Amino acid sequence: MAIEIERKFLVLNTSFKYEVSHQYRIVQGFLNSHKERTVRVRILEKKGVLTIKGKSFKDGLVRFEWEKEIPLLEAESLLELCEPGIVEKIRYQITLGEYIFEVDEFLGENEGLIIAEIELNTENDIFEKPSWLGKEVTGNVKYYNSQLATKPYKHW
Amino acid sequence: MAIEIERKFLVLNTSFKYEVSHQYRIVQGFLNSHKERTVRVRILEKKGVLTIKGKSFKDGLVRFEWEKEIPLLEAESLLELCEPGIVEKIRYQITLGEYIFEVDEFLGENEGLIIAEIELNTENDIFEKPSWLGKEVTGNVKYYNSQLATKPYKHW
Repeated sequence: MAIEIERKFLVLNTSFKYEVSHQYRIVQGFLNSHKERTVRVRILEKKGVLTIKGKSFKDGLVRFEWEKEIPLLEAESLLELCEPGIVEKIRYQITLGEYIFEVDEFLGENEGLIIAEIELNTENDIFEKPSWLGKEVTGNVKYYNSQLATKPYKHW
Repeated sequence: MAIEIERKFLVLNTSFKYEVSHQYRIVQGFLNSHKERTVRVRILEKKGVLTIKGKSFKDGLVRFEWEKEIPLLEAESLLELCEPGIVEKIRYQITLGEYIFEVDEFLGENEGLIIAEIELNTENDIFEKPSWLGKEVTGNVKYYNSQLATKPYKHW
């Protein structure tokens, strides 16, 4: 259980792919996509993860987060219970200095959307901005994965 | 992860209390009270439990259920994220033959309501009906705990 401090940015182009250290596919659904209490089921790298997030504070920068790894088979069963709108994406990890950027390239109904996230230790952390990093969208609800499930990018 | 086969009854009077083997207080909330995918946080006997249930089949007799014990402190934090309407009750366990009845005496906004549940191995199990057991309400949505949170018994 933790408080998550995270900033989110659009990605200008795919040049980030030259810097990737690790990548994997994520399939996820929501048992609740309400922004005050999202309950997410995720499958990645042959394991399941259940994540519960509270509402955002400080313009979306800070959010309560609880996360547990669960067996793959259980995650698959829970995914079947989820709300309509399963989100699929490729996640790329990029290390820049002491920080890790996680870049999500969305598939399916959200194809064309690429978002980068960086997790910080404090709200005031200063980090190097790579050339492919675009506009900041921290706290913009329409870029929440929970919203992309029901209001995908292709329909914007 | 399991399929839950359960029958639910109203309780006619408090004579069941003479047969109780064990009792404890339960405080619970819902991260989602949607009947197709309830996500419940429960605190009982100094531990937390997270339970996810799917929709009901066979008139409410059969329901998908996933359950995990979680630390008390985490359950307390998750309870704060829950939808409005925390449900409190005393649970009494009563052993009759090879079955265990769980009788819930509701408190707060649901005071006056007493419900007995019996978990079965198969849908056709035959069990002894104690004298205090009233009308069957299996599958009646208004008696779901998720519904009692937002539409409590005192307001019926």
